[in-house]
Amino acid sequence: MSRSYPMRDLPQQVTVHEVGPRDGLQNEAAIVPVEVKAEFVDRLADAGHKVIETTSFVHPRWVPQLADAEELLSRLHRRPGVRYPVLVPNLRGLERALAHGVDEIAVFASATETFAAKNLNRSLETQFDMFEPVVAGALEAGVRVRAYVSMCFGDPWEGDTPIPQVVAVGERLLGLGCYQLSLGDTIGVGTPGHVTALIDAFGSPDRLAVHFHDTYGQALGNTLAALWAGVTTVDASTGGIGGCPYAESATGNLATEDLVWMLRGLGIDTGLDLDKLVTTSTWLAERLGRPSPSRVVQALSKG
Amino acid sequence: MSRSYPMRDLPQQVTVHEVGPRDGLQNEAAIVPVEVKAEFVDRLADAGHKVIETTSFVHPRWVPQLADAEELLSRLHRRPGVRYPVLVPNLRGLERALAHGVDEIAVFASATETFAAKNLNRSLETQFDMFEPVVAGALEAGVRVRAYVSMCFGDPWEGDTPIPQVVAVGERLLGLGCYQLSLGDTIGVGTPGHVTALIDAFGSPDRLAVHFHDTYGQALGNTLAALWAGVTTVDASTGGIGGCPYAESATGNLATEDLVWMLRGLGIDTGLDLDKLVTTSTWLAERLGRPSPSRVVQALSKG
Repeated sequence: MSRSYPMRDLPQQVTVHEVGPRDGLQNEAAIVPVEVKAEFVDRLADAGHKVIETTSFVHPRWVPQLADAEELLSRLHRRPGVRYPVLVPNLRGLERALAHGVDEIAVFASATETFAAKNLNRSLETQFDMFEPVVAGALEAGVRVRAYVSMCFGDPWEGDTPIPQVVAVGERLLGLGCYQLSLGDTIGVGTPGHVTALIDAFGSPDRLAVHFHDTYGQALGNTLAALWAGVTTVDASTGGIGGCPYAESATGNLATEDLVWMLRGLGIDTGLDLDKLVTTSTWLAERLGRPSPSRVVQALSKG
Repeated sequence: MSRSYPMRDLPQQVTVHEVGPRDGLQNEAAIVPVEVKAEFVDRLADAGHKVIETTSFVHPRWVPQLADAEELLSRLHRRPGVRYPVLVPNLRGLERALAHGVDEIAVFASATETFAAKNLNRSLETQFDMFEPVVAGALEAGVRVRAYVSMCFGDPWEGDTPIPQVVAVGERLLGLGCYQLSLGDTIGVGTPGHVTALIDAFGSPDRLAVHFHDTYGQALGNTLAALWAGVTTVDASTGGIGGCPYAESATGNLATEDLVWMLRGLGIDTGLDLDKLVTTSTWLAERLGRPSPSRVVQALSKG
């Protein structure tokens, strides 16, 4: 393999927060059998992932792709040292998660008024009424909580999201006791200077993660900018699955493999085995019935 | 449109060296009629491109896609202020180019021994015997010469290309009188720290351009790194055409649209009209019979 070429001012180690089984599969057109999901998660752990967001307790009416959350959790072969967080929208979801021995949850907030209304049926302000009891209940049960903040760079209705508005939402969530914010570019419009400006506006990158979608091809460049700004946790989806289920090889989440290629070249440790990730993505792509949108998977699975 | 978010230490202006008609079309499976090529070049100029690499005088046996170089040049509607360089491999090619009023040419060198042998039938050392008379003849005729250096980051046979070897090849070419080097990551394996290390090794970025292929999804992140290192000329291909002709939507050159999205977000002036580029790429994709691999084109031509 190639040698590495470090760069000034970048972290030495990065945690990849794998979101493929949850954010990836919930946005695929195909509904994947639970035994395939369980194998997918096991393979991700085998490739070295230490954080695998596994499923969601959102009501199956909204996300039929993840209706088998309970059964999936019961089928996992949990490994020591690997975390398997699940997304939890409300107290009912929290009860279900706790009943299945979940060790970490995530809540999903909006940085914009319109998306809060459309996705959560709340306002920017009243969405916290949803999160407060969930976060409090989780912490009381000894379960860590991560918070997604979606539409941090723009949304389809309001244009650019004002940075102070994102910071205000994020600080409310940290104030509730969330251990980390995942700043999401849900529609993929952000560019590197926007990324560093947002991270800098928080004052410290220590409790921030980034979550980029590759809709406009910006995900990896934006990740590089985030690393510069001091972020050390990056969300990615093995194979780049998810995003838009209606177009072939459409682009959703940043592909874990493309991220690992860059980090490995930079000499930044992730603990991940790229070959195993690519093999897993090729295996999953056959089951999804479409090629992986990851460039690295496409390149390495040829010939 | 979104506002821009500048970033420290980046240039205020970037020249996009458009390579679609030459490097793009020569690597497409489809052979495009000359009148479509002429319209493509005209549309690129209309979108604001100031440098459009138009075709190649390589022997048609090697590149049948560009066998119509002479006819294409005769059909161009040349605009004041726009340069239309062509690739020239040898003295015969230079004669043909000069006979058609070409105002700028490019030569194509290798940074590795194996690729020099396979692509040029020369050694790393003897390749300069080809370039010397071509560059001298062009300069004598008042024609500027750009030099491509291919395989600057690695090649399929030798692995990583040693940085001093790239610098030695590049400096020979500058010494012959080439006005600019285009440092090519022909197989797309480079990562950002490798990019900055190579640029820094030249001592100054002033006569350097970068030419990235997106085979492993690294092209735009690498471009960002190059801008940081002071480079202000970036090669790109409108629609991301070229690369591998044998796989649908396979990834070749960095897409001009994806580059412009990033630069526009950073507040870096290119003089390019993104909407016109996207319209051109959508038009060309229909003629090539495959979707554009550019993420921006895919996103903006939906719905």
